[in-house]
Amino acid sequence: MQRIAIAPSQLQQGQILLTPQQQHYLGRVLRLRTGDRFIAMDGMGQWWLAQLEGDNAQVLEPMVVQTELRATITLILALPKGNTFDDVVRCCTELGVAIIAPVMSERTLLKPSPQKLERWQRIAQEAAEQSERSFVPTILEPVSFSTALSSANDQQYICVARGNSPHLRDCLQDIGQITNDNGQRTIVIAVGPEGGWTQKEVECATDAGFQTVSLGRRILRAVTAPIVALSIVVAELESEKFGNYK
Amino acid sequence: MQRIAIAPSQLQQGQILLTPQQQHYLGRVLRLRTGDRFIAMDGMGQWWLAQLEGDNAQVLEPMVVQTELRATITLILALPKGNTFDDVVRCCTELGVAIIAPVMSERTLLKPSPQKLERWQRIAQEAAEQSERSFVPTILEPVSFSTALSSANDQQYICVARGNSPHLRDCLQDIGQITNDNGQRTIVIAVGPEGGWTQKEVECATDAGFQTVSLGRRILRAVTAPIVALSIVVAELESEKFGNYK
Repeated sequence: MQRIAIAPSQLQQGQILLTPQQQHYLGRVLRLRTGDRFIAMDGMGQWWLAQLEGDNAQVLEPMVVQTELRATITLILALPKGNTFDDVVRCCTELGVAIIAPVMSERTLLKPSPQKLERWQRIAQEAAEQSERSFVPTILEPVSFSTALSSANDQQYICVARGNSPHLRDCLQDIGQITNDNGQRTIVIAVGPEGGWTQKEVECATDAGFQTVSLGRRILRAVTAPIVALSIVVAELESEKFGNYK
Repeated sequence: MQRIAIAPSQLQQGQILLTPQQQHYLGRVLRLRTGDRFIAMDGMGQWWLAQLEGDNAQVLEPMVVQTELRATITLILALPKGNTFDDVVRCCTELGVAIIAPVMSERTLLKPSPQKLERWQRIAQEAAEQSERSFVPTILEPVSFSTALSSANDQQYICVARGNSPHLRDCLQDIGQITNDNGQRTIVIAVGPEGGWTQKEVECATDAGFQTVSLGRRILRAVTAPIVALSIVVAELESEKFGNYK
């Protein structure tokens, strides 16, 4: 069944007030007619089965979805040059990320245009729909790396190439069990630019409570590393060893 | 230090006979001069420290590298439409794959041109150099899926979306210990096209000894799935639980 993302404010008294773009998409692109059903997602974890009624839609029932992780994963990512960040946003959304925090690092000082942020949000929305997620990741405004660092979390990892840091996989042994003071499971992973974080940045991060980790013995490109890191964390979270968390 | 890939036949009596392209690359692009050192890789797991001497190079000593996995991973990949296979070859090479076997599946019947195969081999070579691997993966000639299936191996997995297959991660518990009759550790993973393998293909694979596995609860694109699968296998192989295999 076709899915569209709606803003929570569009849902009013059992009706979905469709925007002109959504009316066009449902009616012209998907060729749905009054009475046809589709899925509306609010990007906050809730899905509804809906039925087209003229220019708006009727909510039939809420839906149960099981495609979200039982942890909030934040990726702090150094902005690369060029357009490769599009691919990173797309792949990481498919994998289940909750928040992407693009940062400017010492080796990548470019501040992206506001259009870029809108573009990434659109890509995240499309990728969330395609991968059947019930939650659209948030893409934060790019800030400096030091601003993005926060010591509010006890599961914070910064990926570094070379050196003798333990493998990320081996740091996640109890990932399914650990929750913070609010009973939430939150994991933060920082992945650097081409050329890696500077020594000073790594020190800033460890001072803020980040643990340095390795993603293996080969040198990964900046576009590959976040996908690899996220694959490892997500596989651990969905491992049967933590039981079924439906 | 700069690295170039050489054919084993270029190495003769302690000398590396450089091709005109390599002479150009070392002399004009990298601006090395007689006496400057570089690394030569034969793509079979061996590196040498070499020194430029006019149009050829002198081997100084063999080098020990530790960037290769202690298992031979073969990826059987359904060919996608368009050029997205380039990215898959690049990322999977970075991650440590040994053999990529592109296949035509029921949902992707296109037979690629011979130029494509050459292009993928060139991408694999570049990615092997960049990720500091000592081995260039082999890209096989595209064949039909049924031809690619082989029952010679006891660690064979076929990734399927939806359904109740166990997670790939949970099937790898003893991956570090298992070797075949020849004492080698070989793992084969098959990843389907957009839309997935057909039911018939999955049955063919299970008949050939493949186990169906899941990569998680979300629907991944065909270009993302092999990177995720490989990330999971490689992290398990490099986990400290199997000890240090230097």
